[in-house]
Amino acid sequence: MAPHDALSEFDLIKHYFVRQRPGRATLGIGDDCALMTPAAGKQIAISSDMLVEDRHFFAGADARMLGHKSLAVNLSDLAAMGARPVAFTLALALPQAERAWLAGFADGLFALADAFDCELIGGDTTKGSLNICITVFGELAPGQALRRSAAVAGDDIWVSGTLGDARLALAGYRMEQELSPADLATAGARMHTPTPRVALGCALAEAGLAHAAIDISDGLVGDLGHILKASRVGATLDVDALPAGPVLARQETGLRRRYTAAGGDDYELCFTAPASSRDAIAALAISCGTPATRVGRIETQAGLRLVDAAGQPLDLQLSSFDHFSD
Amino acid sequence: MAPHDALSEFDLIKHYFVRQRPGRATLGIGDDCALMTPAAGKQIAISSDMLVEDRHFFAGADARMLGHKSLAVNLSDLAAMGARPVAFTLALALPQAERAWLAGFADGLFALADAFDCELIGGDTTKGSLNICITVFGELAPGQALRRSAAVAGDDIWVSGTLGDARLALAGYRMEQELSPADLATAGARMHTPTPRVALGCALAEAGLAHAAIDISDGLVGDLGHILKASRVGATLDVDALPAGPVLARQETGLRRRYTAAGGDDYELCFTAPASSRDAIAALAISCGTPATRVGRIETQAGLRLVDAAGQPLDLQLSSFDHFSD
Repeated sequence: MAPHDALSEFDLIKHYFVRQRPGRATLGIGDDCALMTPAAGKQIAISSDMLVEDRHFFAGADARMLGHKSLAVNLSDLAAMGARPVAFTLALALPQAERAWLAGFADGLFALADAFDCELIGGDTTKGSLNICITVFGELAPGQALRRSAAVAGDDIWVSGTLGDARLALAGYRMEQELSPADLATAGARMHTPTPRVALGCALAEAGLAHAAIDISDGLVGDLGHILKASRVGATLDVDALPAGPVLARQETGLRRRYTAAGGDDYELCFTAPASSRDAIAALAISCGTPATRVGRIETQAGLRLVDAAGQPLDLQLSSFDHFSD
Repeated sequence: MAPHDALSEFDLIKHYFVRQRPGRATLGIGDDCALMTPAAGKQIAISSDMLVEDRHFFAGADARMLGHKSLAVNLSDLAAMGARPVAFTLALALPQAERAWLAGFADGLFALADAFDCELIGGDTTKGSLNICITVFGELAPGQALRRSAAVAGDDIWVSGTLGDARLALAGYRMEQELSPADLATAGARMHTPTPRVALGCALAEAGLAHAAIDISDGLVGDLGHILKASRVGATLDVDALPAGPVLARQETGLRRRYTAAGGDDYELCFTAPASSRDAIAALAISCGTPATRVGRIETQAGLRLVDAAGQPLDLQLSSFDHFSD
C-alpha cells in the first residue's frame, strides 16, 4: 500500500497532467486510448524522442527546464518537417513521485505546449530510472513536408538562429571552458530551454520556399550529412559564416568554428532552398522573428567540404554525436 | 569513437528496425518525422505504454518475448477501444547495443506487428537503463469507440479469454506458489506473450454490440472499477463465473478467486453490453476465436459487489496494482 502522503499513479496523472480546458482531441487522458480527429485532407507528422538522465540532461536537472526541453526537442522535429503541432503523449518513468518535481516539470511542459497550442492527450507513468518519452503529432498538407531527401545541387544551405552556445555551456559545466557566471547563464539557457523553430519551419513548408530540412540536434555537420546522404548530393559549408551564439561569438576562432559546426543540442533548423527563394526567405525570417543565415551551397560532388571566409579548406577534426559510441 | 565491432545508433536502427517492405506510412523511418495519411473519415486512436526492467519484466528477460509483449500491451489498448492497428513508434533505451538481444527483440516485435499489419514508422534509440516505450496508432469510425464512460445499468459484464494464469506464473517465479515445470511454462506464456484481443474488440465496436470496454492490465477488479467510475454506475461481479486460465483452474478456490479477480497482466478485454446483444456476442466470439464469458451486471447502485456462485458476498481483500505504491 502507498504511504500516507505518497501519490498514486492515478492521483499523479490527475493532479499534474489532466487539465480542465477545452482541447483539440476528441478524447484525451483517461481512457485506453486518446482519440484524434484529423483535419480533412491533412497528413499527420509523428516524432518520438526519449530523454534519459546523464545522457540528455544532468542528474538533478531543474524540473521546469526539463519539462520545457522534453517537448521542445519533439516540436523541433515537427518544425524541421514543416508540420503544425497538434498534440502529444507523455510517457514518464520516475524513481519516485515527488510533488515539487512534478509541479515544476508540468509547468515547464505546459508553458511550451500552450505557446504552440499543442495538447497533452495521453501517455503513461511508471516507477523507474528517470526517462521521459514524448511522441508528438503535427499536421501538414500532402506534398508540403520538408524531407531530408529533397536537397538539389545549387540550393543554398541556410541555418536558423545561432549555433554553438548550448555546446559552450556544456563545456562550461564540465569546467573545460572558463565562462563568467553571466555567460554561463546565457549559454546555459540555450542548452536547457531551446526554442523550437516551428513558425519558420511551417512558413517555409507552406510557402513552398525550401527543399530539404533537418533540425540540428547532433551538430550541424552531422545533421547536414543526413540531408546530403538522403539527397545523394554534396556541399560546401562556409564555417565562418555560421551564426555563433552571443557568448560563443566572443570566444577564440577555433572554438567558435568547432562549436558552431558540430556543437549539438542547438535545435535550430538547417534547410536548403533554391537561390530564387533568397529574398522571400529573408522576409519570412523577419516576419517569424527568427534570423536565417546562408552558410553554404549544395553541390553534385559527394562529401562535405568545410571552408573558411577566404574559401580555403578547413580540417576541424569533427565527429558527430552517437548515442552508442561511448 | 565507437569500438570496432560496436553498433552505432544509425547502424542499429538500419540493421534491426528498418525493413525493406511496402508499408502503409507515407514516410517511415529516416526523417525528422514519420508521415501518416489518415483514412478518410476515420478517427485515430493513440496509446502509449512504457515498459521498465524490474517493474514490467524481469532483468534478463528473453528479448524475443519482450519484443512481443511491448507491442502486445499497446495493441491491447487499441483492442479495448475497438480501433484497428495501423502503425507504431518505438523509443528504446538500452544499456548497450547487443546484437543477439536486438535481433531477438526485433523478431518478437515484428512477428506480432506483422500479424496485425501494424507498421513501425519511427522512434528513437539511446543509451540508458533498459526502457521500452511504444506509441501505437489505430483507426476507427467516429462514434464507434468503446469508451470507459459508456456502461449503462442493466448491461452484462463480459470478459474475453481467461484470467489469472499470468499472475499465477509470477507467483511461481517468485516461489510463492509451487508449480510443475510444465504448468509454469504454460502459465508463463500468458505472462510473457499475451494475445491482444484486437479481432474481438474491433468486431464489437464495428457491430455496435458493446457499450464500454477496458483491457485488463492491472487486474479485473481495478480495471472494471475505472469503467464504473467513468460511467457513474456500480456492479455485481460473480467471481466464480470468472474464466480461469488452464493452470489456475486446477488450483484451490481461494487462489483462483483472487487471481482471476485481481491478478493483473491478463490483457483480456472487460466489456459491457446490453442483454439484447448476448446471442450476437456469443456468435462473434466464436467467429473471432476468442471465448467471451458473462461475469456480472452493471447496476445503478455505486460500488463493486463481489459474489460467489450462490450469490453470497465475498470479501477477497484485494488491492489493485499501483506503480507508485511500493
